[in-house]
Amino acid sequence: MQSFNHLRDFEVAEISELLELAGRLDEQPEPRALEGKVLSLLFLSPSLRTLASFQAAMTRLGGGAFVISPDMSIHGLESRHGIVMDGNAAEHIREAVPVIASYGDAIGIRAFAERRDLDTDIKETAFSALTDFVGDTPWINMESAMSHPCQSLADWKTLDDFNMPKQGGKFVLSWAYHPMALPLAVPSSTLHMAAMRGMDVTVLRPEGFELPDPIMREAEAVASANGGSVRESDNRAEAMEGAHVIYAKSWSSTQHYGQRNAEDQARLELRDWCVDEGWFEPARDDCRFMHCLPVRRGVVVADEILDGPRSIVIPEARNRMLAQMAVLHRMLSGSAT
Amino acid sequence: MQSFNHLRDFEVAEISELLELAGRLDEQPEPRALEGKVLSLLFLSPSLRTLASFQAAMTRLGGGAFVISPDMSIHGLESRHGIVMDGNAAEHIREAVPVIASYGDAIGIRAFAERRDLDTDIKETAFSALTDFVGDTPWINMESAMSHPCQSLADWKTLDDFNMPKQGGKFVLSWAYHPMALPLAVPSSTLHMAAMRGMDVTVLRPEGFELPDPIMREAEAVASANGGSVRESDNRAEAMEGAHVIYAKSWSSTQHYGQRNAEDQARLELRDWCVDEGWFEPARDDCRFMHCLPVRRGVVVADEILDGPRSIVIPEARNRMLAQMAVLHRMLSGSAT
Amino acid sequence: MQSFNHLRDFEVAEISELLELAGRLDEQPEPRALEGKVLSLLFLSPSLRTLASFQAAMTRLGGGAFVISPDMSIHGLESRHGIVMDGNAAEHIREAVPVIASYGDAIGIRAFAERRDLDTDIKETAFSALTDFVGDTPWINMESAMSHPCQSLADWKTLDDFNMPKQGGKFVLSWAYHPMALPLAVPSSTLHMAAMRGMDVTVLRPEGFELPDPIMREAEAVASANGGSVRESDNRAEAMEGAHVIYAKSWSSTQHYGQRNAEDQARLELRDWCVDEGWFEPARDDCRFMHCLPVRRGVVVADEILDGPRSIVIPEARNRMLAQMAVLHRMLSGSAT
Repeated sequence: MQSFNHLRDFEVAEISELLELAGRLDEQPEPRALEGKVLSLLFLSPSLRTLASFQAAMTRLGGGAFVISPDMSIHGLESRHGIVMDGNAAEHIREAVPVIASYGDAIGIRAFAERRDLDTDIKETAFSALTDFVGDTPWINMESAMSHPCQSLADWKTLDDFNMPKQGGKFVLSWAYHPMALPLAVPSSTLHMAAMRGMDVTVLRPEGFELPDPIMREAEAVASANGGSVRESDNRAEAMEGAHVIYAKSWSSTQHYGQRNAEDQARLELRDWCVDEGWFEPARDDCRFMHCLPVRRGVVVADEILDGPRSIVIPEARNRMLAQMAVLHRMLSGSAT
Repeated sequence: MQSFNHLRDFEVAEISELLELAGRLDEQPEPRALEGKVLSLLFLSPSLRTLASFQAAMTRLGGGAFVISPDMSIHGLESRHGIVMDGNAAEHIREAVPVIASYGDAIGIRAFAERRDLDTDIKETAFSALTDFVGDTPWINMESAMSHPCQSLADWKTLDDFNMPKQGGKFVLSWAYHPMALPLAVPSSTLHMAAMRGMDVTVLRPEGFELPDPIMREAEAVASANGGSVRESDNRAEAMEGAHVIYAKSWSSTQHYGQRNAEDQARLELRDWCVDEGWFEPARDDCRFMHCLPVRRGVVVADEILDGPRSIVIPEARNRMLAQMAVLHRMLSGSAT
Repeated sequence: MQSFNHLRDFEVAEISELLELAGRLDEQPEPRALEGKVLSLLFLSPSLRTLASFQAAMTRLGGGAFVISPDMSIHGLESRHGIVMDGNAAEHIREAVPVIASYGDAIGIRAFAERRDLDTDIKETAFSALTDFVGDTPWINMESAMSHPCQSLADWKTLDDFNMPKQGGKFVLSWAYHPMALPLAVPSSTLHMAAMRGMDVTVLRPEGFELPDPIMREAEAVASANGGSVRESDNRAEAMEGAHVIYAKSWSSTQHYGQRNAEDQARLELRDWCVDEGWFEPARDDCRFMHCLPVRRGVVVADEILDGPRSIVIPEARNRMLAQMAVLHRMLSGSAT
């Protein structure tokens, strides 16, 4: 495996194999599988779960990781092409990325969307500008503008762990209120994952917060090929009807993408998009609640949900580590002694 | 061992076994004892020795550690119950703690006292609010409001290493001047440790800096059960009479606890509480000097002491690593392959 | 090997053995050579390559490293002798260095020049004040005022890897423009390395930017003993005549050392000291470009050079890891089980 960038790059059967490996590594540890192997971690955006779970994953497999983030250093990183670097930044990504990559057997890179132009972000222009420089080193997307494949692999495993049906399983991906405009990576990836798993997916969101058209279209095709479906709704009761699981997440308005004031304005009236027990009325009794974390209590979701039996956010977060162990094992153990 | 929170949770014989193990691991390394094992380190308060010694300890045993501190992230951690999180903090300890714990085979947590209300701190209300969420993961107190058990285990080993008598050994725990109000964790833990070791302990402190009554009473009972004693004094010469060791440490005024101005005022006239050679006049010739570090030279203790033969602060600090190796080995090697 | 501080402490044959070991460890990994071994990394100056490459090096050999930098902590580090520490710093290097060293099987220390007085920096007064306190722990200079031996060892390997002749090889060490006054460690070390390798070295620099006299004199003697030579020039065309390699680096004016305004003034007219293709006119067709990184594009060197076939800065940076693996292996594997 030369890169782990998006679930679309894999067959369903390959995902299944990764998930099986993740489960096996949890039950039958392989503490020498990656001995002497190094994972370089480059964080251009902040992180807690990703930072912790990747380091833990490498340790469990007998290797190790190191972390580089620009705030560690006076050397800010420049990314513009052809610029005369007489300002603050002392290093360009054209040197930093290949060097950091060259110290590892694999490199993980995290860089959020710029959120200036939606098309640019959908095309992953900024992220590709980074991965273009990794050279021969296998690389992992630790969250880009539109993709968070490690989260989605963990989410898929979580759905399996809690026996959610594939075909016929009702998956609600719901927008939620948040005081800030957040990236589209998790909702886009989640949509793709649930569609690829063959579920019937409803994207529940207020007007102005539609997911980008190319992402919806791709998910529809993927769902259709796997026995599932994708639809949109702004009607909570209708969307939640018979749901097996609701996956809440706030994301930026795509109507006012990158326009801070208009975006803030658009969210003003939407504070009631906070998932509470009332939302589950039309759902299955055992409908579960998922979220990628971090989550704002009382804003995105009520305490009663997070602290009650519906929430599976903690095992979901732990699955980050297991999913990543599978990816790293597949990516690196082939070349192990 | 499910937790390492306070020496009071252990029998003297169990402490002896841990110290024996610490010594053995120093002389006969076991670089595969914890292979593939992960220690999660959550620092809600800053650290140098703890940060370094726990990472070193895990590496020496063949495992690894990762570090999370709130300043690594935009996600400040919220700890208040039932709060609507529409401010800066993006994550609540109710998610962060169980998630971080779930990535490790054990978790270490460090959180200093809030220092608003003495009773609340004595009850470890804030620290328990953290450890309540670790789930099934074994946990280690890396310093709470009133406890620093790893320091105390290291200190006990240091007293053994330098052949300090148990019963009949004279241990002076002395307050020292410091420009800031410092926590009570180290003096409280040190007092308990020396009492449990069966020593004759004198708490030397100016008026207003008495250790909290419940902590003194518990130490008296523990000392008495182990052939030692506990007394208080504000008379330096009397306290130091025949002493085998003086353990210096600054701590907050318990009379003006959490009241910054009154506390500062109370310390104003106490700058002469800086340990120098004169203090040792009534002590044994070979009386030693201990301190948990970091220590302010010329403020808490004179250079002549730190740089002279009385000081054993460097081996004392190294014993942090060895003591923690023993705790980790006991806690985690049972489940090793 | 008790310390790795400067190439002058080694025979050419010993350097060759280290480089051979570096190459072997790259081709035949030894992921258990340093199992259970700990490298303490103390960064008093910022870093990216050094931070990453030392951690990666230890992992590849089966051990581990931990990182301490003063900004991790409220405990700023005091280094002045005999000071009363009633200011911000809560810890003195006299405690911090031996304690951090005591947790490791080796310690790496990085501390840039103070750049107040040239003679003091040449004498490594500040750096010696640190290494004097490491006790028995073997130590590695990760860049001091005048020495960066790990960079130089990596550079030597890079010259070998690209088949640069030793005796008869023409090595140009060139000053380059930079908006800030930079340390002398890399140019001084590079000069010594190329001289020790027996090359014909030209130090190309504008007036006022001569390397310090004692460093030039030592390099001349070393070159002469190894069949090479050292000369200075401010004439680009003459210096580059027949060159096999140009090593660019900015450094402080030695004429205005530590005088910020005069130093800035001295650089004002020197913005054309940016290496571009024109510089290579009198050189060999296959003349290579080296730089220790980070490098400012369009300031120190033109994009066309860095992105073209002359540049070997990425393999040069990767050699940092390999060179350090050799040093660590030699330093620590003797004491391995």
